[in-house]
Amino acid sequence: MSDSTPPLRRRDEGGVATLTLSRPESFNALSEAMLVALKEELGRLANDGSVRCVVIAAEGRAFCAGHDLKQMRANPDKAYYQELFARCGRVMQPIVELPIPVIARVQGIATAAGCQLVASCDLAVAARSARFAVSGINAGLFCSTPAVALSRNVSRKRAMELLLTGEFIDAETARDWGLINRVAEDDALDDAVAALTDSICAKSAVAVRTGKGMFQRQLQMPLDEAYAFAGEVMACNMMAEDAGEGIDAFIEKRPPQWRHR
Amino acid sequence: MSDSTPPLRRRDEGGVATLTLSRPESFNALSEAMLVALKEELGRLANDGSVRCVVIAAEGRAFCAGHDLKQMRANPDKAYYQELFARCGRVMQPIVELPIPVIARVQGIATAAGCQLVASCDLAVAARSARFAVSGINAGLFCSTPAVALSRNVSRKRAMELLLTGEFIDAETARDWGLINRVAEDDALDDAVAALTDSICAKSAVAVRTGKGMFQRQLQMPLDEAYAFAGEVMACNMMAEDAGEGIDAFIEKRPPQWRHR
Amino acid sequence: MSDSTPPLRRRDEGGVATLTLSRPESFNALSEAMLVALKEELGRLANDGSVRCVVIAAEGRAFCAGHDLKQMRANPDKAYYQELFARCGRVMQPIVELPIPVIARVQGIATAAGCQLVASCDLAVAARSARFAVSGINAGLFCSTPAVALSRNVSRKRAMELLLTGEFIDAETARDWGLINRVAEDDALDDAVAALTDSICAKSAVAVRTGKGMFQRQLQMPLDEAYAFAGEVMACNMMAEDAGEGIDAFIEKRPPQWRHR
Repeated sequence: MSDSTPPLRRRDEGGVATLTLSRPESFNALSEAMLVALKEELGRLANDGSVRCVVIAAEGRAFCAGHDLKQMRANPDKAYYQELFARCGRVMQPIVELPIPVIARVQGIATAAGCQLVASCDLAVAARSARFAVSGINAGLFCSTPAVALSRNVSRKRAMELLLTGEFIDAETARDWGLINRVAEDDALDDAVAALTDSICAKSAVAVRTGKGMFQRQLQMPLDEAYAFAGEVMACNMMAEDAGEGIDAFIEKRPPQWRHR
Repeated sequence: MSDSTPPLRRRDEGGVATLTLSRPESFNALSEAMLVALKEELGRLANDGSVRCVVIAAEGRAFCAGHDLKQMRANPDKAYYQELFARCGRVMQPIVELPIPVIARVQGIATAAGCQLVASCDLAVAARSARFAVSGINAGLFCSTPAVALSRNVSRKRAMELLLTGEFIDAETARDWGLINRVAEDDALDDAVAALTDSICAKSAVAVRTGKGMFQRQLQMPLDEAYAFAGEVMACNMMAEDAGEGIDAFIEKRPPQWRHR
Repeated sequence: MSDSTPPLRRRDEGGVATLTLSRPESFNALSEAMLVALKEELGRLANDGSVRCVVIAAEGRAFCAGHDLKQMRANPDKAYYQELFARCGRVMQPIVELPIPVIARVQGIATAAGCQLVASCDLAVAARSARFAVSGINAGLFCSTPAVALSRNVSRKRAMELLLTGEFIDAETARDWGLINRVAEDDALDDAVAALTDSICAKSAVAVRTGKGMFQRQLQMPLDEAYAFAGEVMACNMMAEDAGEGIDAFIEKRPPQWRHR
């Protein structure tokens, strides 16, 4: 695959936009080009009313091995690194802020910023053989930015152990610790992802959009603020046609007919 | 059961106030009347020195199915919904703020705001056959206010999965994820609740009251503030007669005789 | 062992400083003398560039049984208690703030402030027969300051259950709940601790120091601040010689030669 091939492919089907990291020869490293492509695609998705949820997938044997170390070494300059990690943040934070759910589809390894990408998604499904590590420490570089996302997914002693030892955990441990939601047999990974996307696409789009942003924002508020915010959001949600239809359908024991699909 | 029956029954025994949701025919929905009754009873309990802990229980096959959807549909007005969710917050937040522990006793289903009620309690015990969901999303209404309590009990990817899929989890999963403390065989649920209330009632009342409020408040503070606050609270606790008696009894290897029972 | 023996012993070997609580006859209670000794040693370690990580261990059958209850009863004075708990905070918080990782090595019981000490460490390893409790409530004294550390390690309903019941959990449960990292057979506890210290000492010292402080600080920040902070820290880490060497070694598939050991 040549450098002229786009590093990120997007495929839309049935309301699901699948972004596939397509640099298998470099284990889908988050090179400058890859980060730019992800940022641009997330920007487009933020304004695309036709998409119901996003899957971040990857080509080849690895999900993502983190930053492009060769590129980093070729630019030994602090301003370059500051810009690089800021650029990375401009990919990770929009995933959290995007008004639609983002699901990581993980095979092989997810290491360093690749593990951060999994942690940043709203949901994650992994193949049973997948493995996770924040392994920068093995190369003299503590995974500081990955730690931000990781420590908001798994408890602090577990996060600290992963960050200090650089050791891998398997998919079942990642599920047990809360880093991912579901483990699928390797040959059933697409089915497991589809079970989640099908479930989300069967819901009211306005309700899903309402919830995604609300959830992430209220996490950072004290309890009273969170309730005030959530109550206002929920009152607005109730005024949407879909809520009326959904509740009527529930009362009448029939399937709902959403307006906002 | 007619509408003139109180929606909430209170029974006091041995320092334990049991509040029983008593609208089994509507799966103990949190109707306006139910929310008003809960708020009033919690207000009374806040000023009742004779009560050592509270159990929230429910009559019939379900613990609580959340808001009263028919009542909500009969009032299609944003101001009504704002007031409804604020009213709900005025039940959930006082549970957290009450100076005595509140234990949920859960059978059947706890869905939407019913699941929020479980999450809001300090402790929860469920029958093995109990199931939990934040299922508003199935009716076009993202469970925004339940999300506030849920996401302060279970890790974020698990909370997001429950909120986006609307799927049920069983009692054992709820325990594994931290939403509840203990699972009892269906016919041993009361025994399991009694084990907790007996344990709490055997403690010094002043120590329990000291702790409940302190615990919930310090959770929202940065580490240094939390330590300053907890240290001050603990110094005050040490000045209570019960602490002196309790420590003397411990040193002398005899049972303590609390003054504040 | 007489009162003139120092309550805390320090042994340095291979970059690992082991602090051993040495009052086995009082279950290594955190007496005034013990707290002073811990505070002083932690102060020294904060400025000791030769140490790569710290192990807090204990002599005898118990890890630590919390505060010295006899000493507390002998000083029934609020100002004394305020100073005592402040003094305790000046041990627990520096563990969190120390620029190197701190590992608890736990045998026997870790109760009340002894459990807080485990919770305050970055990592913890326990013998299979070890047990944990925040049992002040049994003596009329809610474990308020231990609650601060505990509730930042285990989910809130579990923390509340431990604090209100005073009951013990075993090592396996403590691991499952996130209070400790690893459980070792009783006769393999030192090996299990050495596995962690060896792993940490094999890493770049500058990377480990960078990460420890960064991790603890970013936990208290909102997401955008945490990313800004972590990005800046990581850019600085990249400018260290060890990161260049580590990445080169990784690319060249050879072991790295750290400058900062």
